[in-house]
Amino acid sequence: MLPWSADLSGRLDEHLFESEMLRDNPLGDPRERPLWVYVPPCYEDTPDRRYPTVYVIHGYLGHIGMWRNRGPFRKTFIEAVDELFAEGSAPPAIVVYVDAWTGYGGSQYVDSPGTGRYHSYLCDEIVPWVDRHYRTLAHRDHRGIAGKSSGGYGAMITPMLRPDLFGGLATHAGDALFEYTCVAKFLGCIRFLRSYDGDIQRWWKEFRERGVPAKAADRSLLILYGVSACFSARKDGTPEIPFDGQSGMLLPDIWQRWLDLDPVRMVAGHADAMRSMRGIWVDSGAGDEHHLDLGAQAFHQALVRAGVPDETVHFELFPGGHGDLDQRHLLSLAWLARRLAPTR
Amino acid sequence: MLPWSADLSGRLDEHLFESEMLRDNPLGDPRERPLWVYVPPCYEDTPDRRYPTVYVIHGYLGHIGMWRNRGPFRKTFIEAVDELFAEGSAPPAIVVYVDAWTGYGGSQYVDSPGTGRYHSYLCDEIVPWVDRHYRTLAHRDHRGIAGKSSGGYGAMITPMLRPDLFGGLATHAGDALFEYTCVAKFLGCIRFLRSYDGDIQRWWKEFRERGVPAKAADRSLLILYGVSACFSARKDGTPEIPFDGQSGMLLPDIWQRWLDLDPVRMVAGHADAMRSMRGIWVDSGAGDEHHLDLGAQAFHQALVRAGVPDETVHFELFPGGHGDLDQRHLLSLAWLARRLAPTR
Amino acid sequence: MLPWSADLSGRLDEHLFESEMLRDNPLGDPRERPLWVYVPPCYEDTPDRRYPTVYVIHGYLGHIGMWRNRGPFRKTFIEAVDELFAEGSAPPAIVVYVDAWTGYGGSQYVDSPGTGRYHSYLCDEIVPWVDRHYRTLAHRDHRGIAGKSSGGYGAMITPMLRPDLFGGLATHAGDALFEYTCVAKFLGCIRFLRSYDGDIQRWWKEFRERGVPAKAADRSLLILYGVSACFSARKDGTPEIPFDGQSGMLLPDIWQRWLDLDPVRMVAGHADAMRSMRGIWVDSGAGDEHHLDLGAQAFHQALVRAGVPDETVHFELFPGGHGDLDQRHLLSLAWLARRLAPTR
Amino acid sequence: MLPWSADLSGRLDEHLFESEMLRDNPLGDPRERPLWVYVPPCYEDTPDRRYPTVYVIHGYLGHIGMWRNRGPFRKTFIEAVDELFAEGSAPPAIVVYVDAWTGYGGSQYVDSPGTGRYHSYLCDEIVPWVDRHYRTLAHRDHRGIAGKSSGGYGAMITPMLRPDLFGGLATHAGDALFEYTCVAKFLGCIRFLRSYDGDIQRWWKEFRERGVPAKAADRSLLILYGVSACFSARKDGTPEIPFDGQSGMLLPDIWQRWLDLDPVRMVAGHADAMRSMRGIWVDSGAGDEHHLDLGAQAFHQALVRAGVPDETVHFELFPGGHGDLDQRHLLSLAWLARRLAPTR
Repeated sequence: MLPWSADLSGRLDEHLFESEMLRDNPLGDPRERPLWVYVPPCYEDTPDRRYPTVYVIHGYLGHIGMWRNRGPFRKTFIEAVDELFAEGSAPPAIVVYVDAWTGYGGSQYVDSPGTGRYHSYLCDEIVPWVDRHYRTLAHRDHRGIAGKSSGGYGAMITPMLRPDLFGGLATHAGDALFEYTCVAKFLGCIRFLRSYDGDIQRWWKEFRERGVPAKAADRSLLILYGVSACFSARKDGTPEIPFDGQSGMLLPDIWQRWLDLDPVRMVAGHADAMRSMRGIWVDSGAGDEHHLDLGAQAFHQALVRAGVPDETVHFELFPGGHGDLDQRHLLSLAWLARRLAPTR
Repeated sequence: MLPWSADLSGRLDEHLFESEMLRDNPLGDPRERPLWVYVPPCYEDTPDRRYPTVYVIHGYLGHIGMWRNRGPFRKTFIEAVDELFAEGSAPPAIVVYVDAWTGYGGSQYVDSPGTGRYHSYLCDEIVPWVDRHYRTLAHRDHRGIAGKSSGGYGAMITPMLRPDLFGGLATHAGDALFEYTCVAKFLGCIRFLRSYDGDIQRWWKEFRERGVPAKAADRSLLILYGVSACFSARKDGTPEIPFDGQSGMLLPDIWQRWLDLDPVRMVAGHADAMRSMRGIWVDSGAGDEHHLDLGAQAFHQALVRAGVPDETVHFELFPGGHGDLDQRHLLSLAWLARRLAPTR
Repeated sequence: MLPWSADLSGRLDEHLFESEMLRDNPLGDPRERPLWVYVPPCYEDTPDRRYPTVYVIHGYLGHIGMWRNRGPFRKTFIEAVDELFAEGSAPPAIVVYVDAWTGYGGSQYVDSPGTGRYHSYLCDEIVPWVDRHYRTLAHRDHRGIAGKSSGGYGAMITPMLRPDLFGGLATHAGDALFEYTCVAKFLGCIRFLRSYDGDIQRWWKEFRERGVPAKAADRSLLILYGVSACFSARKDGTPEIPFDGQSGMLLPDIWQRWLDLDPVRMVAGHADAMRSMRGIWVDSGAGDEHHLDLGAQAFHQALVRAGVPDETVHFELFPGGHGDLDQRHLLSLAWLARRLAPTR
Repeated sequence: MLPWSADLSGRLDEHLFESEMLRDNPLGDPRERPLWVYVPPCYEDTPDRRYPTVYVIHGYLGHIGMWRNRGPFRKTFIEAVDELFAEGSAPPAIVVYVDAWTGYGGSQYVDSPGTGRYHSYLCDEIVPWVDRHYRTLAHRDHRGIAGKSSGGYGAMITPMLRPDLFGGLATHAGDALFEYTCVAKFLGCIRFLRSYDGDIQRWWKEFRERGVPAKAADRSLLILYGVSACFSARKDGTPEIPFDGQSGMLLPDIWQRWLDLDPVRMVAGHADAMRSMRGIWVDSGAGDEHHLDLGAQAFHQALVRAGVPDETVHFELFPGGHGDLDQRHLLSLAWLARRLAPTR
């Protein structure tokens, strides 16, 4: 009942996925994960038809449950996606909501000794499982991935690493151009760490005892620490931050590990993969609060330089910021569904 | 399963409440309303025991469904309230979640020709219904009301108007001291209205067609328009905003209707009611983004001047802003539960 | 020598004006005042010619000496005015720079037991003196006044009070619509005063000992205190601020004294004066940091309602803020010089 | 006469210095430069005494004339320095105000084909001239240099490059730790350049035609362009900015030229020079708007790592920002004057 809830025209199946890859993950996070699969309205009535699939991945400090959060004058994301298909704004597709939360607040969708094997869990466990249990068009040409913020990061790198699996992507204000966007975040972190003598472990200890993010600094330090766990953990899993806590100076070896994982830099080494995509949607608010518009702009340029054809790419800096990317998600979902649809 | 959900130790009953008062409301909003009643863990096991009740009311642009929204590293409000009672941080009480959403985004918990009879619906329909269906201590000494922002406003005025029903209240950054806090909002509205020749009806028409709040200005104008519907609607229901759209100048007659509903001003006329409360919790972030700390401060002073005993009142300006009032809600809920508990 | 200085084509005479009106002023401020009179390039060569005069008055926390402040890539105001006349962008006029600094940081160009008789000093001492010592067209039709911020306030009220003296005015982001723009400032002041138990005298004492504005709060409280001295001093000169320091509530009697001096409200009572003006320039940055665009907008509307002919008024909300009003001053100065020039 | 001016107890000599080094500078800026030399009150009365000297250099978009700018409730910098010596807060010293303005708004006090030989002009022309014309203690142990912002940058690098000339320095929020502080500025520049297709030459052309900085972007782009002229001009003088205007990506070769001039990096190569200093004052507002607190912090750490003795260094992050560095200048000036004074 509106505005409190909306009935779906399609169907959302809420699974509890038992992962092998996440067994004994270093943070002791659950290996049973919620996995939601949405099938469009026509799915039941056309038992022989197979559908393209779009994987939707959440951002940092997000988890699958937040797709149900409500705001005034609008549907939840789940409901809005359903409306998209119910109204015929997008050709039918299966939408898979994947969870990659960790005790650090995120996973960046990579395999890491600091957090666990979230890349493999997504690519080697969930994708095959979905293909087994749903009538998907189980081919990379009909499989896409989309996300915002850190989810946008995942949506950029996963098809580069696994072009055999993914043939389309959409990134909304995804993490990129690290020497600008990460460094801009470190500025605040260095200041916050002054109260901890530049020692992030002291902050982490204090934060865990407090339990709940209580200070503005917590979010920034949490992301710093957690992304370090994803990108530059030691073999034993301890996150190493890429700058010296006393002076703020970048630590070249650790920082290089981050730069190697910057989508802008990765494109050159995965140019074939990117050229093979059936659709790449890149956007950001032109005034994104985290400057991820610069990341989008640079990623787009890197695609151009890698020879990705213009017609493959939708690039847009729209008026606005990081606050309403869900609306953008809907646009790219319809676009991807068209790009990934079977041609007759 | 954490972090995606938590099992409750108590029980949450989700009712669909059919209101007579809201029948034929001017906006055509549903008269069936979700009504959620939470009973604490011990409720089932002590069939003869009766409990104090706290009514929890949401803020502007909120509705009951948002109490379930999730954020990182924390439970939903519903779950956090349950934990409060499960852990024994608060003596057992029944918590009632009331919905007062309207097509303008809120109701201010007043009766108005612009929106409907939300005050009466709360006081004369829901309270008796809850007392009929739950083992409440059905006396004003054991009944309280709490809210944040516009919910804080409702929590201030409802016990003033109905001290027969409510014997305690908690307001977190509640709307008050209108000549400061409302006027500070009008500043932006006047600027936004320049694109509409100062005519808010033109904006409203455009907004309805767009459907979804798309511009920063929308939220401000929506609240202006909606609160005007609550406080200063014409008899036919049309909202009249309290300033001239061309010059910005306050329109004395309409503005006076707002001022008459300012909790700070209302205290003097309801001093007996306020002195009779068993507990009044007033707080705000000291740097509240909407300057509602000034409202809290002035409301507190008005209580002092009305002779409300110091021991009745908890007043606090805590470090922070409008962003994390849910944590405050939990504090006041435990405090109210103690104040409203039966004395042996 | 550029960029460090520029030679003037006209002439700037720096006088030390000995005021009778300011003798024994309550703050013990100097009664000898710098008074600068600029005569345009042609002045010397046309010994029989008489000129219109524009009085330029500074803003709060300003004094005459700051017209010489330098910024990058531009001339000082004095030099820029000279260039205006040297280049023929404006018909020749005499420009008089008046100083009205006080120990509270400003005077608002009113007579007050709190600061002194700055209105009378300007109108009854300086104007006649200038007419005696320079070849002015000594008639109100050829005499204008211009200012920004508090100087804009002075430029609005002085011709209302003395239409016999002034026949034109220019106000750039002048103080007006006090129930918005002053109240918006009080918001911050009330917060700042919390550290002083709501007692501005305690702050003032501390500030005087410190000597130099050291905290962000100082500027706000200084203006509050000083403008109170101008608008609502007791007979003994003590400033009374228009709100209660504890609750923040406006004190009606004192606040009314402010409102009575609001240019927007004053227009109705001085409609004849305003209708008689040969030119009224009203502008502000559309996003003025002190919301003085709302003051400009309301003042303009008040002029319209008072029947001031459209062709008398130049009204403009330009893109920008409070930061670069000097550029606007140059525009209005040329405009006023044309309006006040003798018709052949 | 206060507050409009103050008499000096010492003496300020305003020279016009004719530079050979700046002859035919690439921007056609004047080679005659204002040079101001202040001698303390006792200078005239003690004709045999020789004094330490402190060179004071201005920041970017500053020039020598701005030391005379006035603000409310305070003296000009020139007057405040005089007061320092008149009151005996600092042992007597000669203070030399050097100008290094250029048509790009600054020079960074380096020799560059883009702007001219401002380093040599300072070190090889002005210093000897001052020693010839004033009773200085003409030895590096008694000669210091101080500045804020880009002047702080000059104060860091000049003694590193010329330890034979300077034995002490003070830097207030000086430019340093470029991979943070410069990159943080580039973020905005990349956005601003979108209107110019990423081409800064197009902006520069437009800016020159407008003449006066009119947009917020102008200041940022001006500094980017001008500092590029200082740090990474082509041989023909054309500034090359260190990132690609389309993608924003750093251009390694050009960016390395900047990094090589970062004081934090330069310390290791000039450790002897830094260890030989008699005093190094490093400070910044802890919340500096340009993040130069991070630069100060890193520069301090670099000094520590280079083995500069603790007693040589005063390091401080004071509460505040970039706005009131003149007050800090006075503190460091007194401190430097003590450090550079002759020991008996």
